[in-house]
Amino acid sequence: METVPLSSANAPRLIDGKAIAAAVTEDVASRAAALAAKPGLAVVLVGEDPASAVYVRMKSEKAEALGFHSVQHSLPAETSQDELLAVVDALNADPAIHGILVQLPLPAHLDSAAVIAAIDPDKDVDGLSVINAGRLAVGDPNAIVPCTPLGSMTLIGTVHGTDLSGLNAVVIGRSRLVGLPMALLLAKANATVTIAHSRTKDLPGLCQNADILVAAVGRPEMVKGDWIKPGATVIDVGTSRVPDASRKSGQRLVGDVAFAEATHAGAITPVPGGVGPMTIAMLMRNTVEAAERKAR
Amino acid sequence: METVPLSSANAPRLIDGKAIAAAVTEDVASRAAALAAKPGLAVVLVGEDPASAVYVRMKSEKAEALGFHSVQHSLPAETSQDELLAVVDALNADPAIHGILVQLPLPAHLDSAAVIAAIDPDKDVDGLSVINAGRLAVGDPNAIVPCTPLGSMTLIGTVHGTDLSGLNAVVIGRSRLVGLPMALLLAKANATVTIAHSRTKDLPGLCQNADILVAAVGRPEMVKGDWIKPGATVIDVGTSRVPDASRKSGQRLVGDVAFAEATHAGAITPVPGGVGPMTIAMLMRNTVEAAERKAR
Repeated sequence: METVPLSSANAPRLIDGKAIAAAVTEDVASRAAALAAKPGLAVVLVGEDPASAVYVRMKSEKAEALGFHSVQHSLPAETSQDELLAVVDALNADPAIHGILVQLPLPAHLDSAAVIAAIDPDKDVDGLSVINAGRLAVGDPNAIVPCTPLGSMTLIGTVHGTDLSGLNAVVIGRSRLVGLPMALLLAKANATVTIAHSRTKDLPGLCQNADILVAAVGRPEMVKGDWIKPGATVIDVGTSRVPDASRKSGQRLVGDVAFAEATHAGAITPVPGGVGPMTIAMLMRNTVEAAERKAR
Repeated sequence: METVPLSSANAPRLIDGKAIAAAVTEDVASRAAALAAKPGLAVVLVGEDPASAVYVRMKSEKAEALGFHSVQHSLPAETSQDELLAVVDALNADPAIHGILVQLPLPAHLDSAAVIAAIDPDKDVDGLSVINAGRLAVGDPNAIVPCTPLGSMTLIGTVHGTDLSGLNAVVIGRSRLVGLPMALLLAKANATVTIAHSRTKDLPGLCQNADILVAAVGRPEMVKGDWIKPGATVIDVGTSRVPDASRKSGQRLVGDVAFAEATHAGAITPVPGGVGPMTIAMLMRNTVEAAERKAR
């Protein structure tokens, strides 16, 4: 793989998001098959944004491939708030649907927060709602956790297991959808967690103390090699496109970490092929879990 | 004050929770007077626990002193879940009531979580509900924040102002009602925040790097003097009773910090008289703010 140039004896272990996501989805498929009623996932798309259309199709196809009941609602760009809320309400009431995903961003005339708040929290498989954020904060086992931090935790688990006692974790980024839930998950797993961000003083020095370093900022290669503690596990959530004349497309994807400099990390996620592939896998896992909870 | 033995020229600044709480309540009283309708606080007590009865009376009396409409419901210990929920529902529906506080702990046969969840989130002035925890996590300005972390932030503000950029904060304790909301509040105020706890490795060394140290564990005097960075601001949330033969009561209150050893701190809260007095003041502030929001 050209994105993974490390190969010396001392090179870090590559955390293969594709392979781990495949294992997660295999588990999800078998759990889905064990249920009397198929897990049902409804994906709602408003408007014709091409990137959103691609994401929605990928999610629907994955759901079908796993044996889910998969429903897609494609609504015109001029759909009103009330019309969209009516679709959400109908899906809330539909016993064959266990997960509802409204693809963001919505057209500007729609109120995303109100739409997300209208989704039954037990069907909010993206974990975007205030109630699921609160459940995570208070430690409610019914919390549905946003897919990116959940996938990142799963990757960390392949290196360290589920108990991170005695490990220092540093999360760079304090966003509501990645940085903050990531910090809460790490603290619950017994790591000592530091939330760092653009106002942090001596970020390199702070990172040098991290046994687990999670970069979730979206600034290409901002984490330099000498910020990384030897042997650390590095989870790179960022994806940015940078110009690259050697590529046919004229650009390539890079993460928040200067990957080529991270030769002394213990384990690291590549970009692409690290955290990215986990997102859809976690969406499917959240959906089968929602179906399992409903079946109990 | 015998609990505040520091007096040398280099002694830390004492953060006087009593005086700061008095200033907060004075502000609350003037805001209450400016409202067309009085802020209404309802306090619900179930059973005859003497300590709970004292707390409830203190809260009701403070509300009256501030010119609030103050209501107290004292229900017998054998009150059923349905009866208690009916009281909460009636208070939710009462436009004269802006804040509802159910004194915890409830008798064992009652489901506290369900009772808290039944309180209108906009009247949940203790900030105990899942929805208010979620609002805090997602940065919703309508979040009602639990009184102890909110009071601790107010004390920190008297030393550092509201922007903590460039400062390292360490919170010892990861409880849902103090440690975790405290960490979220500090991160939102631009501090770099570390959540430490019983599984943390080298807690003394970690604390030595803290410009702001918040101890919220409930272990008497566990934070030793040499854990404290010279000049640091120390917020001591813990209160424990320890034996003291020199007192008539045979005991005294101590915090999580070995106060007498903290001679090189920059500022420190005493116990008692630090965080403690802030709690009721913040409850009153949360109530007047709930009334102000309703009046808009």
